[in-house]
Amino acid sequence: MSISRRNFLLRVGQAGGYSAAFTAMQAMGLMPMKAVAAEPITATAGVGKGTKLVVLGGGIAGLTTAYEARKLGYDVTLLEARKRAGGRSWSARNGDVVEFVDGTRQQVSWSEGLYQNMGPGRLPSVHGTILGYCRELKVPLEVEVNTSRSTLLQNDKVNDGKPYVQRKAINDTRGHVSELLSKAVQNGSLDQELSADDRIRMIEFLKIYGALDKSNTYQGSDRSGIKQYPGAGAQEMVFEKDTIPMHVLLDANFWSAELYEEAWDWQATMMQPVNGMQQIANAFAKSLGPIVHYDSPVSEIKKTAKGVSVTYVQGGVTKHVEAEYAVCAMPLTILNKIQADLDPEHAAAVKLGASLYRGSFKVPWESNRFWEKDYNIYGGLSFLAQGPSPVWYPSCNLMSDRGIIVSGYMDETVGGFNKLTMEEKFAASRASIEKLHPGHGKELEKPIFCGWKHIKYNEGSWIGSTPPAMYNVITQPDGPIYFAGDHTSHVVGWQEGAALSGRRAIQMISDKVKARA
Amino acid sequence: MSISRRNFLLRVGQAGGYSAAFTAMQAMGLMPMKAVAAEPITATAGVGKGTKLVVLGGGIAGLTTAYEARKLGYDVTLLEARKRAGGRSWSARNGDVVEFVDGTRQQVSWSEGLYQNMGPGRLPSVHGTILGYCRELKVPLEVEVNTSRSTLLQNDKVNDGKPYVQRKAINDTRGHVSELLSKAVQNGSLDQELSADDRIRMIEFLKIYGALDKSNTYQGSDRSGIKQYPGAGAQEMVFEKDTIPMHVLLDANFWSAELYEEAWDWQATMMQPVNGMQQIANAFAKSLGPIVHYDSPVSEIKKTAKGVSVTYVQGGVTKHVEAEYAVCAMPLTILNKIQADLDPEHAAAVKLGASLYRGSFKVPWESNRFWEKDYNIYGGLSFLAQGPSPVWYPSCNLMSDRGIIVSGYMDETVGGFNKLTMEEKFAASRASIEKLHPGHGKELEKPIFCGWKHIKYNEGSWIGSTPPAMYNVITQPDGPIYFAGDHTSHVVGWQEGAALSGRRAIQMISDKVKARA
Repeated sequence: MSISRRNFLLRVGQAGGYSAAFTAMQAMGLMPMKAVAAEPITATAGVGKGTKLVVLGGGIAGLTTAYEARKLGYDVTLLEARKRAGGRSWSARNGDVVEFVDGTRQQVSWSEGLYQNMGPGRLPSVHGTILGYCRELKVPLEVEVNTSRSTLLQNDKVNDGKPYVQRKAINDTRGHVSELLSKAVQNGSLDQELSADDRIRMIEFLKIYGALDKSNTYQGSDRSGIKQYPGAGAQEMVFEKDTIPMHVLLDANFWSAELYEEAWDWQATMMQPVNGMQQIANAFAKSLGPIVHYDSPVSEIKKTAKGVSVTYVQGGVTKHVEAEYAVCAMPLTILNKIQADLDPEHAAAVKLGASLYRGSFKVPWESNRFWEKDYNIYGGLSFLAQGPSPVWYPSCNLMSDRGIIVSGYMDETVGGFNKLTMEEKFAASRASIEKLHPGHGKELEKPIFCGWKHIKYNEGSWIGSTPPAMYNVITQPDGPIYFAGDHTSHVVGWQEGAALSGRRAIQMISDKVKARA
Repeated sequence: MSISRRNFLLRVGQAGGYSAAFTAMQAMGLMPMKAVAAEPITATAGVGKGTKLVVLGGGIAGLTTAYEARKLGYDVTLLEARKRAGGRSWSARNGDVVEFVDGTRQQVSWSEGLYQNMGPGRLPSVHGTILGYCRELKVPLEVEVNTSRSTLLQNDKVNDGKPYVQRKAINDTRGHVSELLSKAVQNGSLDQELSADDRIRMIEFLKIYGALDKSNTYQGSDRSGIKQYPGAGAQEMVFEKDTIPMHVLLDANFWSAELYEEAWDWQATMMQPVNGMQQIANAFAKSLGPIVHYDSPVSEIKKTAKGVSVTYVQGGVTKHVEAEYAVCAMPLTILNKIQADLDPEHAAAVKLGASLYRGSFKVPWESNRFWEKDYNIYGGLSFLAQGPSPVWYPSCNLMSDRGIIVSGYMDETVGGFNKLTMEEKFAASRASIEKLHPGHGKELEKPIFCGWKHIKYNEGSWIGSTPPAMYNVITQPDGPIYFAGDHTSHVVGWQEGAALSGRRAIQMISDKVKARA
């Protein structure tokens, strides 16, 4: 798979937000030197006392907004369309329903205890804000395995379509690179780059780096794979001597799959809440108590002389909330469908923004854990160059009997996946498993197509690359109406961005409240 | 730190057993092609019925031996010197005592719930035998973090002694290697190695591999470190542009610390039992029930006309067990001190083996989890070139208040550590933390020096490099006396080797029993 494709599939949302501006900054040499995790909210205690605030949307952004507002004394109401908090931070289980806007309903009927994070599934250890909330709200975390050397890389065009084990692709790549560079250092072609002393040290280093043999040649190593494990008595270890030639690796183009573990927000250690990402939203919601109004989709937002008036429908009854400020923490796709009293600039930004949402999906299945028993795969990701990819193995309840495996987590526009019928989608997803794990495709049961583009109250997975002009508008308030959500951050598609955006909204409102006082 | 040193510190035990023989095999071209995990025991059901077996030592080898023997119908007795099973597979907690042969006693007094695996701490996902027992005995496992990009690498001789973050060392290394190789490919010095087409593809690949810029130069990347994390609103991500120059990396010699994650038995995913490695031994012991006799150190092993007679002392009372076969699953250091009726060849092998044991130690401390809060370090290892190393962060109970951190896990002969007084040892261990985490050394409490060379009933951490002649003797029985333990395997220092050796002993005995029948 090409890096551009994988970027598109998995990272365009996260990266798109900041990459353009970042390139510009680089060019301009604007390089602040201070490492900043999360800006603390600098409002004085009780600044919100006597000020009414309404928060629209109970995903991580809305929950963070309400949580921080309450800390500062605001009188907060949060309106959430669904019967649960969390938005995309959803861990689906038996009895849950995946509800599309077209009326399609898929009932989840997995075995007791099994769940799938349909939205975000990873907490990078450098996402200090959301981790800080986990600490504060006492959400138990466990390790999420993002890197496992036993996972597989597959491309129909190489190795007769048979997958390579990740450890082999990664270590054979390093071996060949090291051998080639060692040759270049030895033949004097880098004498201008390296001192005589460093040339000697480079050759020694490359021997270690690439696991080269005494003649500085790469002939495989135990890092790449074992043919016979060492045992008791006479059984000695024998590693695989047959390496993947460099030109085959170039054909295979596994590079992004070999390097995803080095992306700054995908590096180990990654974590996940025990029992699902939903636990973070649940902990916020529990703390907020009656502040959160469920089953309360917003139908209208109006500016008033005193601030805003929000209309919502709760259990068939139309209701109103009056407040001095509103924080709109719903996706732009949904806001765009609501009668909202926005100035033309903001209305245009919402409309444009709504059109930029991606359609990432996951296809989870219930299965026995053949990947653990037969492949020594405990968590991590396998990648395919053709068809639904990646395959994502569960990090929870290792060695239990059954688990949920995701086969396909990408944008539905890729390869025309969105053109397939539901049955064809499941067949394609199953076929990816069968390519990686022959004979096991048939063991998969109870698939769900969680296509975020179609999901009621979302209608998109995350916002795509955002024009700076639009971003500049949506990150500024329209009178009493403020905006939050990962789409108002440079950490799109991550809970960290949502949490930061909620904190920022409260910071801005508190600055205003203080200035008025 | 040099690779030879780290090998010595951490891997000599594990690697020593097979490396010599393996090199010889390589040279001879003996390369079996079949991947073998664990040889199944091929005895017929009930083969052991009516045959009395005594197992000496209740570590993983002895427990596995007894467990498999019982399955086959043997009448088994296991004698264990301590009041607990597991041997080195020991998770020390509040109330436990570290007891040296010289009478030194250290009482563990850590806070409730905290523990440290004093012996083995990792289960590689490729160690199918011990993992198979975890599955069979329903021992809950969790991920053990062996790789974390936020951990630190430190050498007094570079960067004014300040540590580098692992992500920076690893990704700067890859960046420089890629830039140099790209230059060599471009300047034509590898034209004989690469086709014209592959040269073009190599340059494109190296751009991705090393995160090179448009001019194929390495100028840092977000993989190496972030100066400013992306945030909400205007806050964009800025990565560290200052790279560690290649010649500094060569000075630093971090290679083994940068590459340990690729060692075949250290590759992700690694696991650990929830609540400590001890849980595996506990599960075996629970299953074996009255077969295990605790507090029963063996004092004599004699051959008899019918097999063996073993003398042991239980609660001050001298007792005997008569059996047709004995499996001696205690360390050779201990066996060497027991009056044992061995033929001269085996007696010599035991004596030589006993002299080869290493003195690896761990120094665990209780502390608040500053490494998580202030360094985003969740599990993994930091390495120092001078003084006690590595520092090993806990993978359990992430984000809880307190934890056990190991500062120093190496052979006590390195750097004269064994010459220090207990207080000096703790000061040196604390100093390593202070080098990596300035200001936090003083937060460490309640250290334990778990020096396996001194521990009663062990007197060694694991056997060092074993001469093939001695190995060939000790892996064969002396009449009715068989030998088990990781020292009779090519997986020295790992529970996998111990478990395989126990299975092998039962296989050999069953073959004999069957032949006799």
